[in-house]
Amino acid sequence: MSESEISRRGVLSSALWAGIGGVAVGAATGGGAAWAMAASTPPSDDQIDLSRSYPFYGQNHQGGVATEPQRNAVYMTFRFADSADRHALQSLLARWSAAAAVLQQGKPIGSVQPGVEVQPPTDTGEAFGLSPASLTITVGLGPSVFGPRFGLASKKPALFSELPTLNGDFLDPRLTGGDLSVQACADDPQVCYHAVRNLARLGRSIVSPHWAVLGFGRASAGPGQSTPRNLLGFKDGTRNISSPADYDRFVWIKGGDQPWLEGGTYQVARKIRQLLETWDSDRVGNQQQIIGRHKESGAPLTGSAEFDTPDFGAKSGAGDPVIDPLSHVALAAHENNGGIMIRRRSYNYTDGLDPTGQLNAGLLFISYQNDPRHFIDIQNRLGAHDLLNEYIRHIGSAIFAVPPAPEEGHYLAQGLF
Amino acid sequence: MSESEISRRGVLSSALWAGIGGVAVGAATGGGAAWAMAASTPPSDDQIDLSRSYPFYGQNHQGGVATEPQRNAVYMTFRFADSADRHALQSLLARWSAAAAVLQQGKPIGSVQPGVEVQPPTDTGEAFGLSPASLTITVGLGPSVFGPRFGLASKKPALFSELPTLNGDFLDPRLTGGDLSVQACADDPQVCYHAVRNLARLGRSIVSPHWAVLGFGRASAGPGQSTPRNLLGFKDGTRNISSPADYDRFVWIKGGDQPWLEGGTYQVARKIRQLLETWDSDRVGNQQQIIGRHKESGAPLTGSAEFDTPDFGAKSGAGDPVIDPLSHVALAAHENNGGIMIRRRSYNYTDGLDPTGQLNAGLLFISYQNDPRHFIDIQNRLGAHDLLNEYIRHIGSAIFAVPPAPEEGHYLAQGLF
Repeated sequence: MSESEISRRGVLSSALWAGIGGVAVGAATGGGAAWAMAASTPPSDDQIDLSRSYPFYGQNHQGGVATEPQRNAVYMTFRFADSADRHALQSLLARWSAAAAVLQQGKPIGSVQPGVEVQPPTDTGEAFGLSPASLTITVGLGPSVFGPRFGLASKKPALFSELPTLNGDFLDPRLTGGDLSVQACADDPQVCYHAVRNLARLGRSIVSPHWAVLGFGRASAGPGQSTPRNLLGFKDGTRNISSPADYDRFVWIKGGDQPWLEGGTYQVARKIRQLLETWDSDRVGNQQQIIGRHKESGAPLTGSAEFDTPDFGAKSGAGDPVIDPLSHVALAAHENNGGIMIRRRSYNYTDGLDPTGQLNAGLLFISYQNDPRHFIDIQNRLGAHDLLNEYIRHIGSAIFAVPPAPEEGHYLAQGLF
Repeated sequence: MSESEISRRGVLSSALWAGIGGVAVGAATGGGAAWAMAASTPPSDDQIDLSRSYPFYGQNHQGGVATEPQRNAVYMTFRFADSADRHALQSLLARWSAAAAVLQQGKPIGSVQPGVEVQPPTDTGEAFGLSPASLTITVGLGPSVFGPRFGLASKKPALFSELPTLNGDFLDPRLTGGDLSVQACADDPQVCYHAVRNLARLGRSIVSPHWAVLGFGRASAGPGQSTPRNLLGFKDGTRNISSPADYDRFVWIKGGDQPWLEGGTYQVARKIRQLLETWDSDRVGNQQQIIGRHKESGAPLTGSAEFDTPDFGAKSGAGDPVIDPLSHVALAAHENNGGIMIRRRSYNYTDGLDPTGQLNAGLLFISYQNDPRHFIDIQNRLGAHDLLNEYIRHIGSAIFAVPPAPEEGHYLAQGLF
């Protein structure tokens, strides 16, 4: 098993980190002693190691779902050209697979030097010399893939269709839908952007970009990393899926009606504008009531530490619930949603200023689940009742089926064809 | 001299890096031997240490000019409210100075916990728990500061006024000008955004945001870092100012007509859209002719290594210049501009897609010089002749006077009042 494979699975990760650190120290000092010492020393949260890479092939599941969240993301959806046919789609998925495997190794696609130059270069070049930076590329297929155009209607999973209108939707059609999606996550924004740009370029006769978001999180890193904060200033993702059992139960598709999607999942992407000036004018006590957690520590209002289990039954001396039943954490909690959990991978975004000079920023919310109804049900409750709704707008939305990772020599969603 | 001061001045920086690395290793293993070993070991380009901080006070010059470029930037310009008067401006500069000093230490401004909560919190909270990440905050004053409003006309430097229309300008008024500017650079985008957002919030009765850009560079780090690449895929900044003598000659203001600006500089910001799809359709050989450098190595077309000095007189066997006199490197070179150099600090940006589905991305170009005519002259030549003009559009522009850093107990531009 390679270092990358170990890392990919998120096990023994501190050993991996130590190993990489040891290589660097050992190489620079020429001494084996440094290696041995560093081998027991995972880096602090203040260090990022960009040399880590994840393999693309043979991982059962695509990366970027269970992968320890990287610090940056570029997310793009695509629309088919009118001329795109079944063969073109098949060819695109094969080319994207091959390119993704190379990009995740930190290498350019195609040759770099002009040599006998008869056409533009394959790779756009802005990542030459950069490290893999834990890049993962995650490709999704929209519901339109199973429309009449490609003759794939029989391969459509019964659970899969465009999202219905949900409570609280405030969607901009320019930020909604898409025939294909690419999520590129890495610890270097330039690596993310390069990956998506080059996949767009490889596909330009078949698909054109539809909408895109550049997402960022905090840069502190390492296994045991602290939960990132959204631009509301609150920790976001504390009660996320993390155990293999929960991934099997809630994320990975198993025993579905479409063999090609076994080991895959469904991706929901929402662009959520946050009305930061309004939020910032609110007292912390009110903000905490809306979220149901303490701002600095992230602890539920019924607890003292971030990972304390919220006690939704706890009452104050006056007999009121300590955690408001309409708070964000209460409405989203699996205890209050029939036990359902979704895997969230959210990134902050900023689009600068809006035409009125307000901060145009928010959250790129991406969730993974093996049944789209899980997201739909949770979001319908949140959209109807969440105290937070006064401060947010769901302006973009899309859903995609994410096939499993291919084996080497194969390509994404090959079972469709 | 503190660690940070050493780093701030860009000298002995590998010793500093080693020191920080040593702290981490030593603390984790409890051993002094690790420190001693690490002390001779700067981290590789693949490691970022987020614990580094720069002091705000007593540095002669503001940070973010000569500071080793951090990986991320948020740049925002502001407009005065109609009600802003001299006292309000003075008060704002004092509050921004105090806040900048705290933010650069990685601390929130004001208290966090609600306690006796009578008003919204001072700090918006999204950087709680994050490291300083080498944050520098650089504040600039626009030409309008010396208009009639503030009674500061007598303090206006003779060299300082709005930029004239320059060759190649394609400016969008929504991205042009500003009364004040804030440049926040750090190795964590969340730290940058938090800083600018909180300064905007502190100033909201006096100034409102006018335009803003989120900039990014490659994440690989460390002293001796390789030159970053722009989204054209070329190294950008190879022939930048780096020696103290050149800073004194070309960047820092000395012996000017305004004592309050001694040790300061002028900041020019340009938002430059790059037409990436057009660029990407060009052959590498043509791209190299346009830039005057090899794409992968960054070497001039007359050399073999990045830092080789371009030979603008060299001819090919056919008698043509090897470096086209209208190439970007030839027109920008100090050899062809009367010896003039400017300090550049550029970041890539992306605004997603434009309404036609093209990549909406480019370069946030920021330069520092002790005479605005240096930028004007170079840009006028480039704007008139640069082969690159077919692929770029200067869509945003502004100029600011950057006062020196205050001593502790003082504030930015205090000499104005």
